[in-house]
Amino acid sequence: MNRTVVRGGLVITASDEIHADVLIEGGRVVALATHGSHGWTAGHVVDAVGKYVIPGGVDAHTHMEMPFGGTLASDTFETGTRAAAWGGTTTVIDFAIQPKGGSLGEGLDTWHEKAEGKCAIDYAFHMIMSDVNESSLKEMDHLVSLGVSSFKLFTAYPGVFLSDDGQILRAMQRASSNGALVMTHAENGLAIDVLVEQALARGERDPRHHGEVRKALLEAEATHRVIRLSQVAGAPVYVVHVSAREAVAELTRARDEGLPVFGETCPQYLFLSADNLAEPGFEGAKYVCSTPLRPAEHQEALWRGLRTNDLQVVSTDHCPFCFKGQKEMGRGDFSKIPNGLPGVENRMDLLHQAVVDGHISRRRWIEIACAAPARMFGLYPRKGTIAPGADADIVVYDPHAEQTISAGTHHMNVDYSAYEGKRVTGRVDTVLSRGVPVLDHRVYVGHAGHGAYLPRGLCQYAN
Amino acid sequence: MNRTVVRGGLVITASDEIHADVLIEGGRVVALATHGSHGWTAGHVVDAVGKYVIPGGVDAHTHMEMPFGGTLASDTFETGTRAAAWGGTTTVIDFAIQPKGGSLGEGLDTWHEKAEGKCAIDYAFHMIMSDVNESSLKEMDHLVSLGVSSFKLFTAYPGVFLSDDGQILRAMQRASSNGALVMTHAENGLAIDVLVEQALARGERDPRHHGEVRKALLEAEATHRVIRLSQVAGAPVYVVHVSAREAVAELTRARDEGLPVFGETCPQYLFLSADNLAEPGFEGAKYVCSTPLRPAEHQEALWRGLRTNDLQVVSTDHCPFCFKGQKEMGRGDFSKIPNGLPGVENRMDLLHQAVVDGHISRRRWIEIACAAPARMFGLYPRKGTIAPGADADIVVYDPHAEQTISAGTHHMNVDYSAYEGKRVTGRVDTVLSRGVPVLDHRVYVGHAGHGAYLPRGLCQYAN
Amino acid sequence: MNRTVVRGGLVITASDEIHADVLIEGGRVVALATHGSHGWTAGHVVDAVGKYVIPGGVDAHTHMEMPFGGTLASDTFETGTRAAAWGGTTTVIDFAIQPKGGSLGEGLDTWHEKAEGKCAIDYAFHMIMSDVNESSLKEMDHLVSLGVSSFKLFTAYPGVFLSDDGQILRAMQRASSNGALVMTHAENGLAIDVLVEQALARGERDPRHHGEVRKALLEAEATHRVIRLSQVAGAPVYVVHVSAREAVAELTRARDEGLPVFGETCPQYLFLSADNLAEPGFEGAKYVCSTPLRPAEHQEALWRGLRTNDLQVVSTDHCPFCFKGQKEMGRGDFSKIPNGLPGVENRMDLLHQAVVDGHISRRRWIEIACAAPARMFGLYPRKGTIAPGADADIVVYDPHAEQTISAGTHHMNVDYSAYEGKRVTGRVDTVLSRGVPVLDHRVYVGHAGHGAYLPRGLCQYAN
Amino acid sequence: MNRTVVRGGLVITASDEIHADVLIEGGRVVALATHGSHGWTAGHVVDAVGKYVIPGGVDAHTHMEMPFGGTLASDTFETGTRAAAWGGTTTVIDFAIQPKGGSLGEGLDTWHEKAEGKCAIDYAFHMIMSDVNESSLKEMDHLVSLGVSSFKLFTAYPGVFLSDDGQILRAMQRASSNGALVMTHAENGLAIDVLVEQALARGERDPRHHGEVRKALLEAEATHRVIRLSQVAGAPVYVVHVSAREAVAELTRARDEGLPVFGETCPQYLFLSADNLAEPGFEGAKYVCSTPLRPAEHQEALWRGLRTNDLQVVSTDHCPFCFKGQKEMGRGDFSKIPNGLPGVENRMDLLHQAVVDGHISRRRWIEIACAAPARMFGLYPRKGTIAPGADADIVVYDPHAEQTISAGTHHMNVDYSAYEGKRVTGRVDTVLSRGVPVLDHRVYVGHAGHGAYLPRGLCQYAN
Repeated sequence: MNRTVVRGGLVITASDEIHADVLIEGGRVVALATHGSHGWTAGHVVDAVGKYVIPGGVDAHTHMEMPFGGTLASDTFETGTRAAAWGGTTTVIDFAIQPKGGSLGEGLDTWHEKAEGKCAIDYAFHMIMSDVNESSLKEMDHLVSLGVSSFKLFTAYPGVFLSDDGQILRAMQRASSNGALVMTHAENGLAIDVLVEQALARGERDPRHHGEVRKALLEAEATHRVIRLSQVAGAPVYVVHVSAREAVAELTRARDEGLPVFGETCPQYLFLSADNLAEPGFEGAKYVCSTPLRPAEHQEALWRGLRTNDLQVVSTDHCPFCFKGQKEMGRGDFSKIPNGLPGVENRMDLLHQAVVDGHISRRRWIEIACAAPARMFGLYPRKGTIAPGADADIVVYDPHAEQTISAGTHHMNVDYSAYEGKRVTGRVDTVLSRGVPVLDHRVYVGHAGHGAYLPRGLCQYAN
Repeated sequence: MNRTVVRGGLVITASDEIHADVLIEGGRVVALATHGSHGWTAGHVVDAVGKYVIPGGVDAHTHMEMPFGGTLASDTFETGTRAAAWGGTTTVIDFAIQPKGGSLGEGLDTWHEKAEGKCAIDYAFHMIMSDVNESSLKEMDHLVSLGVSSFKLFTAYPGVFLSDDGQILRAMQRASSNGALVMTHAENGLAIDVLVEQALARGERDPRHHGEVRKALLEAEATHRVIRLSQVAGAPVYVVHVSAREAVAELTRARDEGLPVFGETCPQYLFLSADNLAEPGFEGAKYVCSTPLRPAEHQEALWRGLRTNDLQVVSTDHCPFCFKGQKEMGRGDFSKIPNGLPGVENRMDLLHQAVVDGHISRRRWIEIACAAPARMFGLYPRKGTIAPGADADIVVYDPHAEQTISAGTHHMNVDYSAYEGKRVTGRVDTVLSRGVPVLDHRVYVGHAGHGAYLPRGLCQYAN
Repeated sequence: MNRTVVRGGLVITASDEIHADVLIEGGRVVALATHGSHGWTAGHVVDAVGKYVIPGGVDAHTHMEMPFGGTLASDTFETGTRAAAWGGTTTVIDFAIQPKGGSLGEGLDTWHEKAEGKCAIDYAFHMIMSDVNESSLKEMDHLVSLGVSSFKLFTAYPGVFLSDDGQILRAMQRASSNGALVMTHAENGLAIDVLVEQALARGERDPRHHGEVRKALLEAEATHRVIRLSQVAGAPVYVVHVSAREAVAELTRARDEGLPVFGETCPQYLFLSADNLAEPGFEGAKYVCSTPLRPAEHQEALWRGLRTNDLQVVSTDHCPFCFKGQKEMGRGDFSKIPNGLPGVENRMDLLHQAVVDGHISRRRWIEIACAAPARMFGLYPRKGTIAPGADADIVVYDPHAEQTISAGTHHMNVDYSAYEGKRVTGRVDTVLSRGVPVLDHRVYVGHAGHGAYLPRGLCQYAN
Repeated sequence: MNRTVVRGGLVITASDEIHADVLIEGGRVVALATHGSHGWTAGHVVDAVGKYVIPGGVDAHTHMEMPFGGTLASDTFETGTRAAAWGGTTTVIDFAIQPKGGSLGEGLDTWHEKAEGKCAIDYAFHMIMSDVNESSLKEMDHLVSLGVSSFKLFTAYPGVFLSDDGQILRAMQRASSNGALVMTHAENGLAIDVLVEQALARGERDPRHHGEVRKALLEAEATHRVIRLSQVAGAPVYVVHVSAREAVAELTRARDEGLPVFGETCPQYLFLSADNLAEPGFEGAKYVCSTPLRPAEHQEALWRGLRTNDLQVVSTDHCPFCFKGQKEMGRGDFSKIPNGLPGVENRMDLLHQAVVDGHISRRRWIEIACAAPARMFGLYPRKGTIAPGADADIVVYDPHAEQTISAGTHHMNVDYSAYEGKRVTGRVDTVLSRGVPVLDHRVYVGHAGHGAYLPRGLCQYAN
């Protein structure tokens, strides 16, 4: 019989820490039981003594093979999901993109083609709306029925992704009626583009200027704006990659008012800073992403927000571009540097390090990395927890192992690491996806095509 | 073998909702398992099909047999804990009181005597400090070692319980060093006593004046004050029975600043209002408690706080006095009405009604009524959740049953109900305490003395 | 010799209340002196015994003959400034409009032509920028040198006046370098247009819907946005016609942060409400203006803001359209009702009524109606105060007279009054403009062409 | 005839800056007139060409000859008011003290005796209530009728001045009925005394520890507390010597809520910091006052508050103790250092320096130093402005003179200066008190006994 037992570990979920064996059958968890209380015989026994047994990570923000500025993010669904698995993540939600002038369906089809048969772990899709109009608004309902229940809109990138405030309001109204969740990239792109042009005109062309022109106040402004638009629409809103303390303050204010407003941050904002953007030579290009890295003093507000639940989710915004040939496109003009960092492999470890550093508790680690993203995006309780009935996406995590993050050892298809040389405590040991081993004592045993598309339900936080 | 299975229900914890059987052995949960996945034979099977299976409630604020104004709260530990069980609560934390001029130990001994051998369910103690001095401060450490890890101080009741701000600061400093949690009754008692005297002098002597003189602003003031004192001491603080929106606002502000500040509210503040205090005749006396009931528009802030975790716990402040003979002591002088309401039996039902009404989710119901109080007061994971290793304190809850709350049917030893005639949906069906049936399909099968004293660990929320 | 004495009144300025005679020579105040302390012989003596002697009002927001939706505001500079004088206002600052595709200079020329030789009192111009581009940005400097030192931009009216956030930022940056003050009409016009279209589609076509679609939250949003843009630009910003308490809250927040942010409200927001928009028949059209009238509970926030200086100026936004033939253009479609109210004649009286009602002090009346607008727009100390050296723009005001506001008696060229039938205490008795009588004991003795163009200096509040 | 003309200067009041001559007769200003517009012959001409002509300063917070900790403040009314005049201050409001167990009247009599016949300039009294009881509460009404319309209560100094919250509430209620203004020293004295005792026990005995134990949070706490008590009482409140940014934040919050709450700060908090308290040796004792000097980063909040009118008044809290023999009483025990700094002579100059430094405008300088204290304490328009009818308390101020503050040159009776060696721009040249020269081109021509007692009216800011 196809039975597995994960034996002897400390099972950690968003709310509990228990010494229990996890019994798996048919790809699902069928029981949690104290050691010795059950008489299971299992074909496969995973020894977790001395280790944590945690739900597989849910990374709600990745961009595999994403076109940007004439190039493509360097991880395919194959390489990216494999790297995710190495890092203890068993579900990714990637962003399909509506082609300008095209339909949502076309975008979704394209992304299905990219992903199908390639993934090491399960995957789902959000939809980026590049063109909000009567037709695409109507199409939102259909996508919800296909399991794509979240739609991202941009106040940034004029001419590319930017929707105007009327379009954003319309999409939110539609979401209010069909239960979808609107996600926003909140930066005032029109104002930023003025500052970009002026900076370049002044000869400020290095990567660090990328951070300087994309001002924290302009992130806060757009964050406030989408909150008020959502309030008018009577819809929830989820703000992606929050990096500025002033933006956190807007989310906090909205939460204090009782609004269904949600925020995500990413490890790069928690562990890196504008100092990295200012690294000598062109090194700073490695850290160019939007919203940008902020001065280190912003981090405290992010940690506070994660602790008091003004921020609910930590995703990676994984969008890798190689330094050679890709990041280099912006030498002499920071605005041409492809925006994005690799990170899908590092998230679970970095957040465990935050536990070690005392920023968050172990349960909160699991909540922000597994349970909350699963609930936020309609995957719960299949994903994000360890409980009878849930998919057996399980990670055996060694909390005492030490490792050094490096491009030399990572599995993402990118020629640098944003955390090169960083020592962290804790490491993924073994990973199961629906009960099937993907990583076994740090030997990769997964394969492309194991991962299945996950149609999602509705957000479980919004009423 | 002494095995029990709770079969077929929907298990709800603070983070999960799962269809699972709960397997119990030796008074503890040993497994959660999908139906059919295990081959257990159990001596006792509890049928939970169509019902919720939830952790027994943890009521962190009761006053059994408490002396107040020359009388005693009308529930003994025997009657009060039995009523608690009827209402789905399996743990109470009662307040032992340091006698003025005496030691903490004396107070604790007295309460142990009251409770021992009487309780239907498990119980623990907080300690009320009536006399903060060098000796009692030192004694705090010892009490922590005895499992009494929380100490309540009052900014109200001058001459009775009030500690001055220097005393409160000293207690908080001690808590900062020994890991204890300081709880505060936060009202400005010195100012209130002025208003009481003036109201009586003006001939304002009815119960409703009790609510008018104990002003919301004076609750907010004291709430802010204890927060700042706790900040100076470097200690967490837990504010009991928050009723005013202005007080919630102070907690919210503190949370926004990242401070380890916690707040409790009670069902009476969520479901009753100053209108009850103004009921004709002397009926209002039934609703006299401190902090007082507020105008109904305060409720919205309390619900918001519960949703966004600015309030973490709902307890009852159960402190019943009979209308006849007790409440009547204050006819013609509201200040002589014994302060307190019965409620230990109603909390789980009223909060389930809040789920039905859409104020909170099912998981949040369990969190604020079971898991959070258990974690807050060092009882987790023995209490407050259903997980392998936890005490088998389990309630089978019928979410569809309808009932009418009434003194005619309740089990508290008090001659009225604060919720007389209120219709609610949901009812406790069966209750296990450490695996032993206390209520069986609404037949009481418990007995005095089953309940054991629970020495508690430290608060699990404060760092 | 051309000497005038205003004798025996109570002189009120923004900071002082003194019993003094005002001595005038050559169109200017030359002395304030206690009665009997001077031996002046004056050709003209104005008896002010028992009356207030106040600076002539400065109305910083009028739209004479403004084109809107295919019609023109019904007051010309001749009729409008005459009415202003009747109401105790001796300076108006009107808005010249840059023609779409044209230059600022063209707009200014057009307005000079409209005004020259027509005005009863002195006048100045702001400039509305309809087309922010390299050329018009440069032209701002020149206009400043011509005494047009304030520029209005709109976040509302897409396709007509709306500037996008990049354009607004650029204009603010230019203002930061040349000392000009950017004024903003702060409503999210793109979102509002969506709501307008939807309301009309639902058949909501009456005037009251005008108020409902132009939501308070969308005023607050845009107010916050322009504040943050001004902060990025390092420039002050002045928000016109603030009507929503949520918008006041944004101004308050900015002031608390120490930002050079200023706000204006108008009598219609202080004395009228959404109830007027909902008057039966098509009567509500009389009250259609943008920002719209709000529910009456917003007024308290406006008064508070005026008292604590979070709002600095009360102007009229005088923009009259006759009910017959003009307002009627929007029968059956509220979006076609010309936006604007008459009011230039009523402001000083209504604000005096606010003194009588206890909302503001007498000094604050003069500050918000005379001194602050003069300082804000670079006319101080020529205008806005009574002091040696100032223009002798002086109003003798009878604080005890009672009057009823009515279209039957007003002097504005419009067929209705927004305050029809309202009884107020206080009335203008006599008005001098640069020492020359315009109104003499309520006999109009002024003439078109007396009023002169006032080139203005820079804002005196911003650093 | 006894006429004086101050000729040719720039007259600055809280709202105006005008080139005018000031005509004085009978001790009062009778006219302001442009130069050349009047034909006055005056017995005394003060040449103010190139200089400012400003109202004499009103210092609303001094402690001449105040008993503290077994010694007396070193300035008598004679030396202190003479020094005030040297510094451009022509009115002081000193604090009479109710003796513990005695009446307000006794305290007032004592202070009248101290001051009568001694003062170089006019003076008035506040009353410190040391003993709030039925009798002293009633007596408040009588004191108001004697021109003592403000009463100071302390939340600090337990056992000496501290009133408990009930007493403070009662005094505020009485003020609410008789129009008086309650002033508060807002620090949580009970908590501070605990910290003092603990610091001394740890051997932290130097002056800098004075600043460390009197924590900013405990100032903020008490500030919030008195605000809420005043709100309950329906009375205004004026908080003296605000030094902490957290306390400013509480005032700001109250102002945002529209409450009649007022705040005073002092030059020492604007120009000195905790660094001074930490000066080597025992030098820090020179800067010991309560509230204490704060770290320099608090200053920005104070300046902001002064600019946006969350703080209305700058007084000195002048309370000098000589370093030798007085401050030295606290060697080895900071808690024994007499609390207080000299400053009555330096205030006008330091605030002019703030104008030079760009912190405030010239008009605001006059407002916070002259007009606002006069209005706040019922002396307006006799004091605080230059206008016909006002007392001719006039300072000719040279804005270009440079000076170095030093104990070697100052006129206060104290052996050190808190600003020793500080260079400032601007200096008092000539001072008139009710038209009589006190300082004439920096020659002292005043005399003890010229100054008269000023019975005061009610606060003009509170409604």
